[in-house]
Amino acid sequence: MNSDKALLIIADSERDSNMYYATGFPAPDPFVFIRKGNKKIMITSDLELDRAKSESNANKVLSLSQFERIIKKRKNKGNACLIEIAATALGEMNVKQLQIPANFSVEYADFLRKNGFKLEVKKEPFFDSREIKNEDEIGHIVNTLRNTEKALEKAIDYIRKSKIKDGFLFSTRNSQITSESMRQMINVELMKRGCTAKHTIVSCGEQSCVPHNTGSGPLRANKSIIFDVFPKDEQTGYFADISRTIVKGKASRSLKKMYKAVASAQELVFESAGNGIRGDVIHRKVLKHLTSLGFKTGKFKGKMQGFFHGTGHGVGLDVHEPPRISKTKCTLKTGNVVTVEPGLYYPGIGGVRLEDMILITDDGCTNMTKSPKVLEV
Amino acid sequence: MNSDKALLIIADSERDSNMYYATGFPAPDPFVFIRKGNKKIMITSDLELDRAKSESNANKVLSLSQFERIIKKRKNKGNACLIEIAATALGEMNVKQLQIPANFSVEYADFLRKNGFKLEVKKEPFFDSREIKNEDEIGHIVNTLRNTEKALEKAIDYIRKSKIKDGFLFSTRNSQITSESMRQMINVELMKRGCTAKHTIVSCGEQSCVPHNTGSGPLRANKSIIFDVFPKDEQTGYFADISRTIVKGKASRSLKKMYKAVASAQELVFESAGNGIRGDVIHRKVLKHLTSLGFKTGKFKGKMQGFFHGTGHGVGLDVHEPPRISKTKCTLKTGNVVTVEPGLYYPGIGGVRLEDMILITDDGCTNMTKSPKVLEV
Repeated sequence: MNSDKALLIIADSERDSNMYYATGFPAPDPFVFIRKGNKKIMITSDLELDRAKSESNANKVLSLSQFERIIKKRKNKGNACLIEIAATALGEMNVKQLQIPANFSVEYADFLRKNGFKLEVKKEPFFDSREIKNEDEIGHIVNTLRNTEKALEKAIDYIRKSKIKDGFLFSTRNSQITSESMRQMINVELMKRGCTAKHTIVSCGEQSCVPHNTGSGPLRANKSIIFDVFPKDEQTGYFADISRTIVKGKASRSLKKMYKAVASAQELVFESAGNGIRGDVIHRKVLKHLTSLGFKTGKFKGKMQGFFHGTGHGVGLDVHEPPRISKTKCTLKTGNVVTVEPGLYYPGIGGVRLEDMILITDDGCTNMTKSPKVLEV
Repeated sequence: MNSDKALLIIADSERDSNMYYATGFPAPDPFVFIRKGNKKIMITSDLELDRAKSESNANKVLSLSQFERIIKKRKNKGNACLIEIAATALGEMNVKQLQIPANFSVEYADFLRKNGFKLEVKKEPFFDSREIKNEDEIGHIVNTLRNTEKALEKAIDYIRKSKIKDGFLFSTRNSQITSESMRQMINVELMKRGCTAKHTIVSCGEQSCVPHNTGSGPLRANKSIIFDVFPKDEQTGYFADISRTIVKGKASRSLKKMYKAVASAQELVFESAGNGIRGDVIHRKVLKHLTSLGFKTGKFKGKMQGFFHGTGHGVGLDVHEPPRISKTKCTLKTGNVVTVEPGLYYPGIGGVRLEDMILITDDGCTNMTKSPKVLEV
């Protein structure tokens, strides 16, 4: 980058993963990040100043109020807003051209353009390196994954030990088991392990036919129960993502056939994925494979059924991030961490989804997930 | 709004509270929301289609893939991106002018402008009504607040019952009490109640002098311990926010004086706040009050000390939202829910912060928080 060029993000790092990736600093309110050459500069409120100096990886941490005073003097007016401060700081650094992320605020972009800055909007991924996980990042993801497996195991084991009464599930202490109680068990277990899970899915029967339905009410015997758990480790910021499908009691022949098909679709991906392989090609292969086994995808009686979501997505500081194994064109690279999660959903029969995480390598991929796959428990 | 005007948001409702407020639909991936006249239209992926129809408050839910087919036909190319789809849908609705939020993606805004749309960027608050909480919203906030109070009470009670050995705190079972163990206790208790807490602060002694330091390591006797807990109820989406300061054992005279000053600063706000009152005027009053009691604010030996954050902030679907009681100009209105959280921080002595939530009314305000305020436990 030339001396008059810089990279700019204005966001809170709690919700904006590029900001967290750039600074390593967790903060709930927006602040300014500038990278000029190989220097990282942050501008924060007085409230965050000392913490930013000790916790972030910035080379320099400046104070918002210092620039506010400059603006106040110049314009003889009260408080300056964040973008005025950023513009003033960039002016002092002699920066005129900026690279900004695609999700940069239009309000801020308009202000900068009006004030003579030239903006280059870079599409996602803003930091190409975010797609290629290094050893530390892989360690963080595996750590979240192991905690997720343990929480999932606890819930499945609880159902394994449950009793069936009139088609419903009851614990050994005779309390009825519901989607809500299982979700709570998983989320509390994860919280004990420092991980925050949101929208954990424990959906049964017809509910499991709607992939993102989180599930509610009593769990039933002999029906498919989908678990989909995707927590974030609050210390490192890295996510994991697992899905499993089980049946307490006996699975119908149709469900067994679906389970086998979905498991074989996963195997197809494990065999196909690797450095340089196209994600969209793999996704089409999976769809074709499931169709060839007799599982049609489309709208029936106004509802989607079959396999109508992506095969996989990148996982890191966001639970859904590039690259994707979906209909969108994209090439996998060594160091990508992606999910493999084919599913089949047929109202009247049930839903089945299996989801593992794989690490793309030079000569294929390795499955990072260790949770067993057993339909009937 | 004229017939060719509409309001547009493109975001995921998990992170964008305006999108959640507009649709009532929780979704982790970006989708399209259009309000034309009093009609609310959503465009989602096939994956979310059925759930959006049943769970959102939109009048109409359209499918992304339906527009993708139109674009494919027209341009003879593969997949269309989200903004192309939104533009096509808006074209079919004969919309040419759009009101968009300030945080709208610059990439999308540039695309829309290039394609002839006229954009009006509305600053925060995008939905003015978000600042004025209705009865349901107040109920949701109180619900989160009561759960927060119970989790906080559990932790403080645990410390009350603890034993002091060599200046450190130990549980009745003889395990050392740390910031981390208290944070876990609070977060797990909240998760049991359906609330997700992040970055819960339990900071002791010198750490408590850095307001957003979450705290680490063993808790000490006779030193201030700041608790700051601000979870979100995952069902309703509404936050609560409480801070308390305690000392296990004996507080120094300086700490006691600080505590009394901070409590009196809170009282000053309770007496001053109300419909039509300026937040910035209240904030200056608080700063002046603390200064008059001998508590100076500023940089000493390179570190901020005294009272160097805002007096309060709005709480709702975001933990920090307008209006603010801070140096920024702003007028409080009936129905606002804001925190009142003066604090004092002096390295060598410790930090003190007390935070309640108030509801602004026509003739003043009511304190929504019930947690007791006791320094020594």
